[in-house]
Amino acid sequence: MAETIFSEMSRLALEHDAINLGQGFPDTPGPREVVDVAVAAMHKGWNQYPPAVGIASLRRAIADHQRRWYGLDVAADGGVVVCSGASEALSSAMTALLSPGDEVIALEPYYDLYGATAALLGARLVPVRLHAPDYALDAAALRAAVTDRTTMIVLNTPHNPTGAVLSTAELESVAQVARDHDLVVLSDEVYEHLVFDDNRHVPIATLPGMFERTITVGSGGKTFSVTGWKIGWATGPADLVEKVLGVKQWFSFAAGTPLQHGIAAGLELPDERLAHLGDDLARKRDLLTDGLRELGLEVFHSKATYFVTADVAPLGVTDSLEFCRSLPERVGVAAVPNQVFHASPVGVETQVRFACCKRDEILADALLRLRKL
Amino acid sequence: MAETIFSEMSRLALEHDAINLGQGFPDTPGPREVVDVAVAAMHKGWNQYPPAVGIASLRRAIADHQRRWYGLDVAADGGVVVCSGASEALSSAMTALLSPGDEVIALEPYYDLYGATAALLGARLVPVRLHAPDYALDAAALRAAVTDRTTMIVLNTPHNPTGAVLSTAELESVAQVARDHDLVVLSDEVYEHLVFDDNRHVPIATLPGMFERTITVGSGGKTFSVTGWKIGWATGPADLVEKVLGVKQWFSFAAGTPLQHGIAAGLELPDERLAHLGDDLARKRDLLTDGLRELGLEVFHSKATYFVTADVAPLGVTDSLEFCRSLPERVGVAAVPNQVFHASPVGVETQVRFACCKRDEILADALLRLRKL
Ligand SMILES: CSCCC(=O)C(=O)O
Ligand SMILES: CSCCC(=O)C(=O)O
Repeated sequence: MAETIFSEMSRLALEHDAINLGQGFPDTPGPREVVDVAVAAMHKGWNQYPPAVGIASLRRAIADHQRRWYGLDVAADGGVVVCSGASEALSSAMTALLSPGDEVIALEPYYDLYGATAALLGARLVPVRLHAPDYALDAAALRAAVTDRTTMIVLNTPHNPTGAVLSTAELESVAQVARDHDLVVLSDEVYEHLVFDDNRHVPIATLPGMFERTITVGSGGKTFSVTGWKIGWATGPADLVEKVLGVKQWFSFAAGTPLQHGIAAGLELPDERLAHLGDDLARKRDLLTDGLRELGLEVFHSKATYFVTADVAPLGVTDSLEFCRSLPERVGVAAVPNQVFHASPVGVETQVRFACCKRDEILADALLRLRKL
Repeated sequence: MAETIFSEMSRLALEHDAINLGQGFPDTPGPREVVDVAVAAMHKGWNQYPPAVGIASLRRAIADHQRRWYGLDVAADGGVVVCSGASEALSSAMTALLSPGDEVIALEPYYDLYGATAALLGARLVPVRLHAPDYALDAAALRAAVTDRTTMIVLNTPHNPTGAVLSTAELESVAQVARDHDLVVLSDEVYEHLVFDDNRHVPIATLPGMFERTITVGSGGKTFSVTGWKIGWATGPADLVEKVLGVKQWFSFAAGTPLQHGIAAGLELPDERLAHLGDDLARKRDLLTDGLRELGLEVFHSKATYFVTADVAPLGVTDSLEFCRSLPERVGVAAVPNQVFHASPVGVETQVRFACCKRDEILADALLRLRKL
């Protein structure tokens, strides 16, 4: 299997001392309570195996969070499994539920792991494209993508790389297809708290008849700006969560004990604090969007996540993959070509994803460097 | 997939407030430098994604360790991949290298993950039994187990659950079979530093013609008494390690950044310190062995690891699984039935594994409780 695009671009960034607007990770700390509690846990000697399913206090905090924020009735015992990052939650869920020959529908562009994991399992990813500039879901296209081999929809909202946030109406059209064809929905919601302006994240599990068929994936790393801690989770009905645990226990067995304590502290912060985690990021989204537009690029409006997508065709670019591979050396900036999130690059050959989750002066410097193009 | 035996027994231990001699984890801290450096990393803000392959300083420390201790020429770039625990190193390696229908030979008793992962992949685990009391390898039996479907040998030395340490002669017989049949060896060496008395761990990769066909797995958690950190690794030739990385990047992507820094500090400790990590444990092995013998049990000599195996038949036990399931409630002690490490329980129906990696007073208390039987 080839190196992931994030590994490739971060490696090139390092090699050429470039500003890394490729892989999505912030360069400022999150809530200090999170780090403080993890440090305290380490000093207390809480460094031995946690239960494979996750420590009880974190499972309770995750269940409480789903209840407080979304009114979802998740069981701390049985309805939550803590994983080694959202990645492991996703790969374990797919491994547990997919068989060779199965078809999985995903909104395209889609996070690379979905396609790679489907391939590893001998399943087939069937893309349903969201089109720039508004990335609206085409409900008819979604319905037309279902065959008698379809068993799962991988949903992702807030959506990476586009920054789209699915509306309740869009979610309802996904839910209808899932219910009509008895599909499981694997809902990647790692950017749930990084939503800008008056956009609002709605978990598909809150829709009628959906909780029992949905595995919802969250991320402590994304929510609390500790992407390197690799604490994620899956929540849902006991029968589905048990299957995820059944696989995940043979992947990494468990996730880092002291870091689980830190993330539990994060989820227990007042709702007011969680509600404002995206504020600073919204401003950065504006900084980057405006700056890229000043360079003459078309920039698609991002409503959420770490990312902004731009069309770099005005720079004379015809292939964003080539462009991104040369960018770190040429001007000292790394970015990710959106085509790697597509089954076919046709129509998105010149789209590039830039991360906005960096300090203002870094974003300003990156824009200055891009001006050289 | 069923709950792992470790999860089951640790859960029962918790429920009945029992002393947990089941799952293998110590109850005393390891070298304080390891925790200190991880804490410092967190305070420095080193909380974002590491490279999927692992941070450079840890990869260098692992490569240096293999060179210093074993004379192995491992490349820090290309010859090492850091994983979310040795579990992920093993499951990624098996996923990368096994196809449905393949046969994998493992020394029996074998760590449960080997069989579960083989099953998940549609491969077949073929056991070659090590027999109590000395657990010597039967080279003829090993050779006889090879068929034209065999592609891998999973080796484990120092050996869990028996505490056997394979001699160079035994390793040579494994190596011969691997070379003759062009097999890959996946060598689980997580207990490499927890070896007692004048026993010595020899990595099979050091034998002639073996480095190029061996993936060696190590564990920061086991070596430095931080089992809950989930930092393990695979080392070997670039072509094999690249395949492990190719899968592992889709499992958890990467392992906890600050914890990787801590483990790097551990591996950089003076060899003298590493050489004595097992001293205290050897004494505890004696405490537990003597105590169990005083209860009238046959105890098989353990040369390494966290574990001691005893035959509980003298207590009137006929099924160790039933026995271990009732033990936490009956007397407040948890242990693991060796039969779960076997394809068939025949001949080991009454063997039980006890962990000796606990404080002296805890071991004494556990022995007192067992006296009630
Ligand atoms: C696991 S590395 C990728 C991080 C990420 O979510 C992204 O950059 O899209
Ligand atoms: C990953 S939980 C099991 C720990 C262990 O190595 C053992 O108890 O054998």
